[in-house]
Amino acid sequence: MLVRPKAGILDPQGEAVETSLRTLGFPVSRARVGRLVDLELDATDPAAARAEVERMCAELLANPLIESVEIEVAPE
Amino acid sequence: MLVRPKAGILDPQGEAVETSLRTLGFPVSRARVGRLVDLELDATDPAAARAEVERMCAELLANPLIESVEIEVAPE
Repeated sequence: MLVRPKAGILDPQGEAVETSLRTLGFPVSRARVGRLVDLELDATDPAAARAEVERMCAELLANPLIESVEIEVAPE
Repeated sequence: MLVRPKAGILDPQGEAVETSLRTLGFPVSRARVGRLVDLELDATDPAAARAEVERMCAELLANPLIESVEIEVAPE
């Protein structure tokens, strides 16, 4: 599951990375920093797993006001 | 670019997420937390872009002793 700051939302970590990379001589035009959460769970099928992770996002893992979420389901 | 704690390396953020999700009633067997860095840069081709990001990882973005890196190149 990937959590990114939404477009237009301030991303201080991304700005720090951008500045540091430029200082080191890397010509990046933009950097944004988000979170990656790998979850292992038992689920009957991929759709059930996705729905479960969506509930986890709503309750704990992401703030829908400022973050967008991308869920990828990989069967074991 | 995705940065994950290597297997066997302590991941306090992942442990906190795991504990909180279980407390909320989600039956997760494991959670690991890493970083996601989206970078925009000019490069002549995907291989050049990947090599550039590998250099950024070595110099700033990841600690190879405790983190593994996955680089994905998406042409604009």
